[in-house]
Amino acid sequence: MSQEGLLRPGIVQLRVLDMEEAITHYVDRIGLDFVGKEDDGRVYLKGYDEFHHHSVVLRPADSAGIDLFAFKADTQESVDMYRKRIEEYGLEIEDVPAGEQPGTGPRIAFTIPSGHRIELFADMDLSENGPETNNPYTWKNEPRGMRAQRMDHALLYGPNIDKVEEFFTKVLDFHLPERVDLPDGTLAIWMTVSNKAHDIAFVKHDEPGKLHHLAFYLEDWSDIGHAADLMARYDISRDVGPTRHGITRGQTIYFFDPSGNRNEVYCGGYTAYKDHPTRVWDGNHVGRGIFYYERQLNDAFLTVVT
Amino acid sequence: MSQEGLLRPGIVQLRVLDMEEAITHYVDRIGLDFVGKEDDGRVYLKGYDEFHHHSVVLRPADSAGIDLFAFKADTQESVDMYRKRIEEYGLEIEDVPAGEQPGTGPRIAFTIPSGHRIELFADMDLSENGPETNNPYTWKNEPRGMRAQRMDHALLYGPNIDKVEEFFTKVLDFHLPERVDLPDGTLAIWMTVSNKAHDIAFVKHDEPGKLHHLAFYLEDWSDIGHAADLMARYDISRDVGPTRHGITRGQTIYFFDPSGNRNEVYCGGYTAYKDHPTRVWDGNHVGRGIFYYERQLNDAFLTVVT
Amino acid sequence: MSQEGLLRPGIVQLRVLDMEEAITHYVDRIGLDFVGKEDDGRVYLKGYDEFHHHSVVLRPADSAGIDLFAFKADTQESVDMYRKRIEEYGLEIEDVPAGEQPGTGPRIAFTIPSGHRIELFADMDLSENGPETNNPYTWKNEPRGMRAQRMDHALLYGPNIDKVEEFFTKVLDFHLPERVDLPDGTLAIWMTVSNKAHDIAFVKHDEPGKLHHLAFYLEDWSDIGHAADLMARYDISRDVGPTRHGITRGQTIYFFDPSGNRNEVYCGGYTAYKDHPTRVWDGNHVGRGIFYYERQLNDAFLTVVT
Amino acid sequence: MSQEGLLRPGIVQLRVLDMEEAITHYVDRIGLDFVGKEDDGRVYLKGYDEFHHHSVVLRPADSAGIDLFAFKADTQESVDMYRKRIEEYGLEIEDVPAGEQPGTGPRIAFTIPSGHRIELFADMDLSENGPETNNPYTWKNEPRGMRAQRMDHALLYGPNIDKVEEFFTKVLDFHLPERVDLPDGTLAIWMTVSNKAHDIAFVKHDEPGKLHHLAFYLEDWSDIGHAADLMARYDISRDVGPTRHGITRGQTIYFFDPSGNRNEVYCGGYTAYKDHPTRVWDGNHVGRGIFYYERQLNDAFLTVVT
Repeated sequence: MSQEGLLRPGIVQLRVLDMEEAITHYVDRIGLDFVGKEDDGRVYLKGYDEFHHHSVVLRPADSAGIDLFAFKADTQESVDMYRKRIEEYGLEIEDVPAGEQPGTGPRIAFTIPSGHRIELFADMDLSENGPETNNPYTWKNEPRGMRAQRMDHALLYGPNIDKVEEFFTKVLDFHLPERVDLPDGTLAIWMTVSNKAHDIAFVKHDEPGKLHHLAFYLEDWSDIGHAADLMARYDISRDVGPTRHGITRGQTIYFFDPSGNRNEVYCGGYTAYKDHPTRVWDGNHVGRGIFYYERQLNDAFLTVVT
Repeated sequence: MSQEGLLRPGIVQLRVLDMEEAITHYVDRIGLDFVGKEDDGRVYLKGYDEFHHHSVVLRPADSAGIDLFAFKADTQESVDMYRKRIEEYGLEIEDVPAGEQPGTGPRIAFTIPSGHRIELFADMDLSENGPETNNPYTWKNEPRGMRAQRMDHALLYGPNIDKVEEFFTKVLDFHLPERVDLPDGTLAIWMTVSNKAHDIAFVKHDEPGKLHHLAFYLEDWSDIGHAADLMARYDISRDVGPTRHGITRGQTIYFFDPSGNRNEVYCGGYTAYKDHPTRVWDGNHVGRGIFYYERQLNDAFLTVVT
Repeated sequence: MSQEGLLRPGIVQLRVLDMEEAITHYVDRIGLDFVGKEDDGRVYLKGYDEFHHHSVVLRPADSAGIDLFAFKADTQESVDMYRKRIEEYGLEIEDVPAGEQPGTGPRIAFTIPSGHRIELFADMDLSENGPETNNPYTWKNEPRGMRAQRMDHALLYGPNIDKVEEFFTKVLDFHLPERVDLPDGTLAIWMTVSNKAHDIAFVKHDEPGKLHHLAFYLEDWSDIGHAADLMARYDISRDVGPTRHGITRGQTIYFFDPSGNRNEVYCGGYTAYKDHPTRVWDGNHVGRGIFYYERQLNDAFLTVVT
Repeated sequence: MSQEGLLRPGIVQLRVLDMEEAITHYVDRIGLDFVGKEDDGRVYLKGYDEFHHHSVVLRPADSAGIDLFAFKADTQESVDMYRKRIEEYGLEIEDVPAGEQPGTGPRIAFTIPSGHRIELFADMDLSENGPETNNPYTWKNEPRGMRAQRMDHALLYGPNIDKVEEFFTKVLDFHLPERVDLPDGTLAIWMTVSNKAHDIAFVKHDEPGKLHHLAFYLEDWSDIGHAADLMARYDISRDVGPTRHGITRGQTIYFFDPSGNRNEVYCGGYTAYKDHPTRVWDGNHVGRGIFYYERQLNDAFLTVVT
């Protein structure tokens, strides 16, 4: 009881075109800590406020996008339990051996109906550079750049949103704080396995397996403003914001990494409980749902993905 | 799976000496919404961001203090399961019938080794004045006074802290983000059943059943500053702050209601997961743990309770 | 010595199409205090933090726009001195008798080469509702709506910007913290008679006498965010922001009153001294100068005026 | 006209006991830029947002305290004019030759009745490391430590406050936004030569020539909170705050440099004009005037000076 099973987004693996530029962007600008680089060229990063070995993996590639999004479970027994449920639901499981990423135990992987590779795992080493636990300071080293505390969530684009919702809520035990329902069906869903307003979200899209954005958590609206100052100073390509989402109420900026992957810095967002009603948006108000101040979608929101 | 069983603090019942003054304090100053007053004199309040019927009950009495602190469960089955566990642990259960508080289903009550009455319940009506769920605004009406979003947690004082920890972690499935361990044993524990840094906390104290403070959640540090401005303007008795807690990292002010019950306005606080290590403070650093900027306890912290 | 002569923007008179809607907008939303309505239909307003009788006048009219922008001087002798200088410069002076606006002494008026009516005056009654001066609170009543502290500055559009600059700097003793110089001449100038980053600004425009925006001062970036929340809640037409200006560094939102006059809520802005160099922007960077985060002008910036 | 004569605090020279510790404190923690060290051991610093060569001078010495506080004038003619007025008032002028501090023109020095050495000067080189003036960014390099923008003001302790007030207002053209009047006379005065709420302040004290604190300007309340986090992290001795002053309304923390000189980080503060009434505090409310939230002076405020 309490939070059992899946806990939170644990790993994202992104494809980047130029690793040096990517490191400058994610480490110096967004403020993630550099954990290490492995022989296959992959680079491992974590937020200063994350306890475990890494949360973001950058893989050098010829096209940008997302390789996988993995949730951390509390125990291997939970992972085994979900393996059964997923197989019963009809998805094929691929086993990823311990050590495929440094410091990481075995993972199970599967492709959901939107075309994204989702993984589950229970074991990851604690970082030697995580938050202090003995008479801790709020941080040991002054946060850097945009002062990102952690990798927070992803918004993914793909087809079969209804099936994705069914899978996440019935098989993976997520609940659904918000949705957008158009006359011809559901456009978008925000889902959480915790008290965060969302751990993952999906928007209906023809192409499978697309990334809309990967989000990093900041302390507050002042840090959102500071992040915007940094984007101006370093000519980082900004999409929208500073603004607020009507959906989740988070305060936000969308921007792009040098490979074209959209990032978000995000703060706030209400505390979600599964006994709270789902907030529902219709086609006349979805603009305000996404961009609370602009009250309309920009073209890029529905079309630019990697 | 996901968050199962207990969800969050659902009801606190406080004793107040002068109801009119109390209403001014909690409604006009802290900014809770007035829900109703019943024939027995009890007054029901809620935060503007809370979905359910009420969360704070004020009972007219001759002495200040706390009558009960109740956790809301997801289902009656969960409550029934905890009833069994609690009885097996050896505490006596008292049944509180549906309707003893308006809009509220049956509760089970028991006294924990610190002398506090704790309750569990699953059913409460949704408020007609809760957050919107159809194309919602972040708020319908501009938040009032200190702009409290919700009742957040309580810090209780009493004996037998070790047994309280055992009970909450083993019987009620809480986990323990932080603790203070002195050479002669545990001084204080911060526990959560969710991802909040704490849902309830206890400090070792000779007298049983005491309230240190009841906390209300604000949006951010700017609202903490605004709350301090209000305290100065309306001569509200302030204890400590604006400051930060080292423990939970929350930003905070302690102050008193007109009856002498300590209140807190609180924001921030990290996101807690049960696979995170417990942070442990020792006697040399507990001052910084409680008051991160002052780096020492004031006398009132350990002695003034209701 | 110290600040002598002109002190600050003292009065703006705007034309509005529907007075009831205008009062809701300026009083309930922006948060100005209602001072009074006179027989000719004009309505007088002030910020809660302003000492004098009024600063904003709304005049019912068939077209939106600005009637006059008046600077308050320290003494009548200063006004008399500027009268001489202005007449020597070649502008015609019109005398406005004391009492033409309630609580206001005599003013002198003249039309500058951009086609705007500018006025100077020394005497205005202190408000009975100004900041306290005896053991004051930071405010007596909690600020309302967007919590505007004062009328701050105006940006005006019209021809002959070079002459306007000459007039304000040589005749009225303003200095020039920032300017935008295009290959074919000056596009825009920001001028101050104080330590504020600007008290008035002008952009080159074919039509004379136009208003780009009237700005109100907020405490900080948090209040800018709150103002944006209010605009969303009350469907106030927003133009741009929350964002920052590169010019003045102020944090800002542009929006419209119900008559179509553009307003700004503004905070920050550096402290300007006349021994600081003028910051100069060129055509390649003016977008970032105006909207620091967007890094480009929107169409409305150069075209929508009243 | 406009601001003529004296412009702002231009130089403070402090005595420090250990230069290496002082540099760590003022450069790494407060965030000033290191300008240079001269052969006599003096170290020169400036805020990232200051245009001129330096504003803070640290002199190695056996006792902490303040050597001098100097105001920058607009022109040498203004300095010459003030020289005459000061001599007529009866104070003796000492000439300090150009180059006594690097990049600095001639200064005139005199001792005011409180025992402090005050200086005036007109000429100082522009820094090569000041704010950009050609298509500027808000900052070139991310602000460091507490992110101090500039040296802002000093509060000095000494006898003969009435004479100091007379001298500053009648001879140096300052005006007086706030004062504290006790039954036996004036306790304290806040004076400005600009629109800042204060450029210098004095409290009545038996010993002459004492420093209460030297203040640095931060952007806003969020940066005040961040400064407090840094003080906790680096064990910087904190006196009071984060809090607000009733007087000036500034948000603030008092703390100490390693030599025992009190520093302040300060933000906000209203915009002062000389046609605003002076705010007056009496003995029953001075506690709230100094510390708006605590509503009482601490012992250190009236006794600990260097």
